[in-house]
Amino acid sequence: MQNDPDITLITPNAPIKAATHGGRAKCLQRLVRLDMPVPRTVALSFSAVRRTAAGNLPNIRLILEQFDAGSLLCVRPSSEDPDWGGPGAVLNIGMNDDHQARLSELMGAEAATRLYCRFVQAYAVHVARLDPDLFDDLPEDECEGLAETLRIYEAETEEPFPQNRGDQLAGVLQSMARAWSSTSARLLRQAKGAPAEAGLGLVVQQMIPMVGTSECGAGVLQLVDSETGLPQITGRYLSRGQGREALGAKSALYLEHDPRGPSLEDVAPEAFARLKAYAARMRQRLREEMQVEFLIENGHVHLLDGVRVQRSSRAAVRIAVRLAEDGIISREEAVLRIEPSSVNSLLHRQVAPGVRRDVLARGIAASPGAARGRVVFTSAEALASAAREEPCVLLRRETSPEDVRGMHAAVAVVTVRGGMSSHAAVIARGFGLPCIVGATSLRFESGKGPVKTADGRVLQAGDIVTVDGTSGQILAGEPRLLEAAQDDAFQVLMQWADRARDIEIRANADTPEDARLARDFKAQGVGLCRTEHMFVDPGRLTVLHQMIFTDSSENRAEVLARLLPMQREDFTQLFRIMEGKPVCIRLFDPPLHEFLPATRSGQRELAEALDLPVSDVTRRIEAMAEYNPMLGLRGVRLGVTVPEIYEMQARAIFEAALRAGEEGAPLVPDIMIPLVSAAREVELVRAHIDRVAAAVRAETGRHFAYRLGVMVETPRACLRAGEIAPLVDFLSFGTNDLTQMTYGLSRDDAGRFMSLYVQQGVYAEDPFHVLDLDGVGELLEIAATRSRAARPKITLSICGEHGGNPDSIAFCRDAGFDYVSCSPFRVPLARLAAAQFAIRSRLGDLPWSRDISPHGGAGPHYPA
Amino acid sequence: MQNDPDITLITPNAPIKAATHGGRAKCLQRLVRLDMPVPRTVALSFSAVRRTAAGNLPNIRLILEQFDAGSLLCVRPSSEDPDWGGPGAVLNIGMNDDHQARLSELMGAEAATRLYCRFVQAYAVHVARLDPDLFDDLPEDECEGLAETLRIYEAETEEPFPQNRGDQLAGVLQSMARAWSSTSARLLRQAKGAPAEAGLGLVVQQMIPMVGTSECGAGVLQLVDSETGLPQITGRYLSRGQGREALGAKSALYLEHDPRGPSLEDVAPEAFARLKAYAARMRQRLREEMQVEFLIENGHVHLLDGVRVQRSSRAAVRIAVRLAEDGIISREEAVLRIEPSSVNSLLHRQVAPGVRRDVLARGIAASPGAARGRVVFTSAEALASAAREEPCVLLRRETSPEDVRGMHAAVAVVTVRGGMSSHAAVIARGFGLPCIVGATSLRFESGKGPVKTADGRVLQAGDIVTVDGTSGQILAGEPRLLEAAQDDAFQVLMQWADRARDIEIRANADTPEDARLARDFKAQGVGLCRTEHMFVDPGRLTVLHQMIFTDSSENRAEVLARLLPMQREDFTQLFRIMEGKPVCIRLFDPPLHEFLPATRSGQRELAEALDLPVSDVTRRIEAMAEYNPMLGLRGVRLGVTVPEIYEMQARAIFEAALRAGEEGAPLVPDIMIPLVSAAREVELVRAHIDRVAAAVRAETGRHFAYRLGVMVETPRACLRAGEIAPLVDFLSFGTNDLTQMTYGLSRDDAGRFMSLYVQQGVYAEDPFHVLDLDGVGELLEIAATRSRAARPKITLSICGEHGGNPDSIAFCRDAGFDYVSCSPFRVPLARLAAAQFAIRSRLGDLPWSRDISPHGGAGPHYPA
Repeated sequence: MQNDPDITLITPNAPIKAATHGGRAKCLQRLVRLDMPVPRTVALSFSAVRRTAAGNLPNIRLILEQFDAGSLLCVRPSSEDPDWGGPGAVLNIGMNDDHQARLSELMGAEAATRLYCRFVQAYAVHVARLDPDLFDDLPEDECEGLAETLRIYEAETEEPFPQNRGDQLAGVLQSMARAWSSTSARLLRQAKGAPAEAGLGLVVQQMIPMVGTSECGAGVLQLVDSETGLPQITGRYLSRGQGREALGAKSALYLEHDPRGPSLEDVAPEAFARLKAYAARMRQRLREEMQVEFLIENGHVHLLDGVRVQRSSRAAVRIAVRLAEDGIISREEAVLRIEPSSVNSLLHRQVAPGVRRDVLARGIAASPGAARGRVVFTSAEALASAAREEPCVLLRRETSPEDVRGMHAAVAVVTVRGGMSSHAAVIARGFGLPCIVGATSLRFESGKGPVKTADGRVLQAGDIVTVDGTSGQILAGEPRLLEAAQDDAFQVLMQWADRARDIEIRANADTPEDARLARDFKAQGVGLCRTEHMFVDPGRLTVLHQMIFTDSSENRAEVLARLLPMQREDFTQLFRIMEGKPVCIRLFDPPLHEFLPATRSGQRELAEALDLPVSDVTRRIEAMAEYNPMLGLRGVRLGVTVPEIYEMQARAIFEAALRAGEEGAPLVPDIMIPLVSAAREVELVRAHIDRVAAAVRAETGRHFAYRLGVMVETPRACLRAGEIAPLVDFLSFGTNDLTQMTYGLSRDDAGRFMSLYVQQGVYAEDPFHVLDLDGVGELLEIAATRSRAARPKITLSICGEHGGNPDSIAFCRDAGFDYVSCSPFRVPLARLAAAQFAIRSRLGDLPWSRDISPHGGAGPHYPA
Repeated sequence: MQNDPDITLITPNAPIKAATHGGRAKCLQRLVRLDMPVPRTVALSFSAVRRTAAGNLPNIRLILEQFDAGSLLCVRPSSEDPDWGGPGAVLNIGMNDDHQARLSELMGAEAATRLYCRFVQAYAVHVARLDPDLFDDLPEDECEGLAETLRIYEAETEEPFPQNRGDQLAGVLQSMARAWSSTSARLLRQAKGAPAEAGLGLVVQQMIPMVGTSECGAGVLQLVDSETGLPQITGRYLSRGQGREALGAKSALYLEHDPRGPSLEDVAPEAFARLKAYAARMRQRLREEMQVEFLIENGHVHLLDGVRVQRSSRAAVRIAVRLAEDGIISREEAVLRIEPSSVNSLLHRQVAPGVRRDVLARGIAASPGAARGRVVFTSAEALASAAREEPCVLLRRETSPEDVRGMHAAVAVVTVRGGMSSHAAVIARGFGLPCIVGATSLRFESGKGPVKTADGRVLQAGDIVTVDGTSGQILAGEPRLLEAAQDDAFQVLMQWADRARDIEIRANADTPEDARLARDFKAQGVGLCRTEHMFVDPGRLTVLHQMIFTDSSENRAEVLARLLPMQREDFTQLFRIMEGKPVCIRLFDPPLHEFLPATRSGQRELAEALDLPVSDVTRRIEAMAEYNPMLGLRGVRLGVTVPEIYEMQARAIFEAALRAGEEGAPLVPDIMIPLVSAAREVELVRAHIDRVAAAVRAETGRHFAYRLGVMVETPRACLRAGEIAPLVDFLSFGTNDLTQMTYGLSRDDAGRFMSLYVQQGVYAEDPFHVLDLDGVGELLEIAATRSRAARPKITLSICGEHGGNPDSIAFCRDAGFDYVSCSPFRVPLARLAAAQFAIRSRLGDLPWSRDISPHGGAGPHYPA
């Protein structure tokens, strides 16, 4: 063979790498090395394909020299990562009038003609780019059909169908290379995580002529069920078939003996046994469940191709665990093989794959899982619906703290406005509710619905819809759903992961339900309990309203005292559920005006409840309005200006800790101050809380400790961490707000341009979704360095929405943080991701290469 | 004299310092050193007074030993800085029954009795803390009066009036020490800039008995007029008077010969001549205009005390210039002697000092100066009023860009809401309009007035009020105003300042009027031209509205093209006025929804104008609303998502630069991109603008250059300055927004708690008023270091509201910034402040000490 580094015959020692020739070429070489019966195959490198796309064909003669004269060839794509997809395979290159005549003698005229006809059509569509519809109405008769196909080809291209094998191959290579470099293909694979410059290799394989008297045909086999991952020989075989035809053919056989019909095992038991042995050997030696494309020629088995078995998230876990249990891979490798984000789908119901989707609207997939129910437009209706035990989907323009109870009563939430970190999104993730936000194509006809879709359909209250929070689609009706699956294999895998992990994972939990979830998902504590949700209960809200309309400090304290027993009960429950694990309670954070009614009627009701003239109420509400509530009178600023709220909360926390502690080890609550921008704020609040602690100790005669911390959410708090650290026991980074302030970007308002920004690469990622290491990350590092310099044993953590994101976990681990806290439903993902980072940092890069990607299934087929 | 470091007889070599004994003691020592006839004086140190306040009196015997037996004494305060004020002087200590009898022989019974009586009263009020009203109705007869005074004293205190001079002195010292340490006194002096631990010294002086046949009496003299600073012997003399009595007495004489009445020069020409000579010598040697308290005893002149002449800001300038012109101080010292903030009052009218003020409401003094006019409640009324040439005061809840023309038509602006950096405040400072914001005690009775004051008065449209933007008071009626004064002395001083200065001062100028002011105030260019104000003209607003309601990019560009000629004209004017000096134009910044009408009626009008259904308009406006507009779709985010606006503006700038440049040197405009948070934003906008430049060059066939820069307003832009710098020619820090984001604090919403925060020391200062060096300053330093590392010649500046603040100027100078830009009316202040920093950094600390403070007049008298 003339030496051309871009054209390589696959032999055991040929210089073939996934990084230069793609995963398929590499996998075929592995089969060759295992002495598997693989037909003669040539691998074309990425650079050959790149040049081909630019019009610079490889040496066709050199390729053809590798194969038997007159043999048919097929070409398959071989991208670096199989997940990235590629153009579809083209078979039977070399078919022409002569070959048809020769084959007719060997396999019968009809079969040969059909092969030829099919090749001409494939060539016409993929290479000559003709419209496939042209070949829709061909005559039934094979011969007439072929003649008509050739005629159409010639008429449309104004050229006769090429008869030369080399010309055909050149055409196919060029069409496949160009398909890869098209814009749509690039976008498709970038969506799968491919880099912009991802390479495509091609493999050219000699086809085995299926002529002979014994069994001939082709099929596909795998040893596990793709849905469950359980051992199960799966696949089809088609006598006289080619390639993957068996999968779609009615007359295809089962593989193993099967009561439903004839099987390969029945018709060719020896071949089947050999095939099974090959497959088992592949699993053992390739250390992966593989799907093999095979061919039987006169009873002889040939292996044409092998790819990773496509698998559901659930199957992926079972497969990894079984490989480890069989001693084929280590437990740590098993842990590494599960894409953390895929764990999410195990915790939630899903729309069954493949069902027809009647999409009413699309939005941002803000909280995963699927649910269906009747549309309601207000929280009150949601509560009423829940009371009737009728599942409902809450559809609103946006949500506010007033809606939290309604959200909790719904099975899913959809908002027209907002982004990944809007109120609705954050709360829904906390509740584990499927949620779609920013469904901007929906249009409220009036304030309270109905809602019109972009295509003019009207959604009335009571209509049944399905919310797919995983894909961000709102679907009409009730497509089939798959249940959540946390089976034994999942539990085993997570145990292995926890053994490897070296950073704590806590959960953000505001309610007893959250806390129970956190405990069930094995969170190591509550890293953030937001207390404001505890005030939205109507009874409590009234007290809060009275407090807001009270002017003197004493009277405020008096009014708030009525909330004390309720808050104490809230915290007692939380402590009891968490069974002594750390619980970090954030003091009241939002601006008070968020709790006041926005509508005239709400204001009238409030005026009645408070026995005040409506004008007083509206005037007060107007006076409290803020231009930029995010940057207004909230967090510690309330703690400094209206200290009675924090004092009441501190007392409730201490009394609850004593009460819950009576039953077991003494409890040491963590108390966290939000929105700090200056050390003096912490001093002032600390003084208030210390005074409350002293009072409670004096009243009860019992000693207790507590830990005070700051939620670091402003750039200034990061910069001044050296001053703040000596005043506190811990710093927890609220990366949502910190991101907002570092970028000068409101999470609630960013939705309108974020997707454009990410598309244009202005931001590499939505910084509310993926922690911005360059900007926000640097502030975190500055804060960590300065706070540790001032107080070496300070506890550091992240408790923002980023907490459950693998990138953030890696960052926190590298920065030596003590824990990350995320919403309960993200805890398993976080545990797994953290374990993977720990394993990787111990093991370095992994023994398997990208040719058998540990994640996902086969990628999409690009239009050629 | 026994050695007690806290009790020091003032002699030329005694160890007396302003920092330990106060300014008055130091000044008296200087007079002693100049051989002036100063009576024997003892200085008590700060520590002595501190101990006295704590109940630990100094050694009274030791003090008395310094004076003639039986002499009367007076005690005066001597604080470190005379501006900080102190308790009032107490004279005639030592008066008692015996002394009265002795004096009666020497000066007559009546005078002696009156002295005694007055001393008892002073002692009763200041030391025994009796109510002064007790002594209101004394008998006319001096003797009976004294008897009654002593009786009242005894009745109220249940003790006889102390007869012992030492006891009296001890009582006086203690009362003065305690007055200084009272809370109200501390707050008073802290308001003048005194530190919390500011010290008070006391001077005890022997009084000269005014007995004899020749002229006896006391008076006060200075060589300049306090209002103008022009040479003018000023003061009064009272025969047989004491202390400063002459200033209030009807029978007091003029000093110099005067047609209005008898003078000291007439009655004691020799003494007057000597006094004049002493005063001239003091001016020469103390290098300051001094007010001297003198006493004439039998024709002999004694100097009892000297303090800096109280002076208006205008007089301060004239005095400094004259001292320099007379060769007494250097020009640089003259520059240093003017408090930069006092320059402001020279540029604006002021409410005349001393007039009665009927305060309707107080607010934040947002823009200095005074003006009066009729109240209007809407911008439309303001415009109508201006058309009638009737001065009006625009009173609104808050202002928005729609109000800019109305503000411009008014003579002053008052808003109920907002802080130092609210829209109203920023715009008013730009216009040089007196402005008060956050006048929260005013209450709008309905949306458009009338307004009710806290004391129940109602302000109707048309009522005349006076706005004192210097003090933050809204006054009823028309108190007398003083005109602005930029006289020759001011011009000379500013010339000297400019010669010393080493950092450029530019002005923020949005309009031709601004630019003219900037040029007149000798700004070295326009550092920030905000272009959004150019869109509020009704004709242009309509185009902007059409653009907002246009969906395709081409149509938007077409609509915007109608604004091109107007914008081109805006910029041409600006360039022409600035006569080739640099002009930095900031591209469109605010969120588009700010330009849409908020009221139903406005929306109806808009719908009519656009020929759209009202529902479309309201729906669009609702869809565009933002939760946190400060953090929303504005600045460069508009530039990226709606590039047509920036393209139109860039074209207008280039075409204007070519047009204005035709008449002189070619113009190189600076174009600034607002609200950047990522380098890629700059790349994208740069590409758009470069394309426009290329097109304009091609169309006109003329070459031109431009400089592109970034307004650094987000913490992230600071952190990523190293990436941004290579893409631009300059960075200008928008410290308003940067402060908001660093603190997570909206300038518009901070007003509600900022004063409490500053009071409690949570923030040392309002960070929107004084640049926060610890947080925002560090971000500026980070950005400066990183941008210079990437592009050493990059131009750096500040253009936020802090630009005119001396602390910020010092910061920028130290950081090696190229210029600061501030509102035109702050330019003289900035020029002066910058000059002072340059001089100080060359000269180090100054030759004069605090005893003769370069700033202000005598401080307030505290209640004893």
